Amino acid sequence: MKKTVITVSREYGSGGRLIGRKLAEELGIAFYDGELLSLVAKESGYTEEFVRRNDQKKTQSLLYHLYIGSQILPASDMIFIAQSRVIKDLYSKESCVIVGRCADYVLRGCEGVINVFVTAPFESRLARVRDEYGEQPDNGNYRAYLTKKDKNRIAYYNYFADDAWGKVQTYDISVNSDIGIDKSADLLAQYIKERIGE
Amino acid sequence: MKKTVITVSREYGSGGRLIGRKLAEELGIAFYDGELLSLVAKESGYTEEFVRRNDQKKTQSLLYHLYIGSQILPASDMIFIAQSRVIKDLYSKESCVIVGRCADYVLRGCEGVINVFVTAPFESRLARVRDEYGEQPDNGNYRAYLTKKDKNRIAYYNYFADDAWGKVQTYDISVNSDIGIDKSADLLAQYIKERIGE
Repeated sequence: MKKTVITVSREYGSGGRLIGRKLAEELGIAFYDGELLSLVAKESGYTEEFVRRNDQKKTQSLLYHLYIGSQILPASDMIFIAQSRVIKDLYSKESCVIVGRCADYVLRGCEGVINVFVTAPFESRLARVRDEYGEQPDNGNYRAYLTKKDKNRIAYYNYFADDAWGKVQTYDISVNSDIGIDKSADLLAQYIKERIGE
Repeated sequence: MKKTVITVSREYGSGGRLIGRKLAEELGIAFYDGELLSLVAKESGYTEEFVRRNDQKKTQSLLYHLYIGSQILPASDMIFIAQSRVIKDLYSKESCVIVGRCADYVLRGCEGVINVFVTAPFESRLARVRDEYGEQPDNGNYRAYLTKKDKNRIAYYNYFADDAWGKVQTYDISVNSDIGIDKSADLLAQYIKERIGE
């Protein structure tokens, strides 16, 4: 298959990560989500545990950094920079699926990149987070938990990318995963095969 | 087939109208684009020619209307209201594909509605407008012509709908039509059949 990097952006709880993994399997290419973190650790010099703790977190405000008198870039920024290098490096080397981490932004304008977005209605996402991901918010309030996760994801993207998160024109295909994980992956695989002419 | 109304939003020049028509054919349901206008004329009392002239135009600013001392709603608003009634009426009656006209917004929250968005890169849209739609901007500047069309479409939506145009979460599926009109329609038909369980 022609070298292709597929970025998967997704709403929290939409099953986008699972769909990305399935898609990579169907296309027979590598999959990077958490897998990216050990590469980022190597690139940045931080420990993997530290990278994991700061993964996809927006940096605290500039005011905070001025307040604490920090002279160097905040850790989240350093990690984002290392991560961008890792993503560009993967792009130059192999076909793969990369989940999250503003990969669509990092690779904008690069040839052979196909951007995917996975959505799902709030209620579907809430049910998946509660019943399948097995996450347990402190106060049991899944609604508030999901709303906060959504907010953080958008803030992360809008901090590091120069564009607004979730603009439909950014993506080559988006899909509401209510048709199921496997069927969503099938549909995406089909689209991607059409795009790369296979 | 279970009663389903499919709204098709699209970027100008993406081929969204053609894809919508093909999709309606594949699903064996009615198609409304220009077809809506005669129904809107009937509903509003305006002539069809007048409706056509004001179709999908944003109303001029409130200031302008205050300036000319208008006591009644501007024509574009009246047409939008009539159009919304026609869209809701179609929704209550039959399965169909409706292109544009904020139909996704008018039918928001209604059961059995599937929202589609068709995108395409600027260059692909420019080529289609020039070579297939046969449109001829006054000064031959297709780039400026397309940019203006984009701007008007967004302004129309953002004036009449309470949400921003082109938010990926609004749509059940979006597709970059660079795989071709027929293949895009096929893919959308497949998704829709999955969604309605056929």
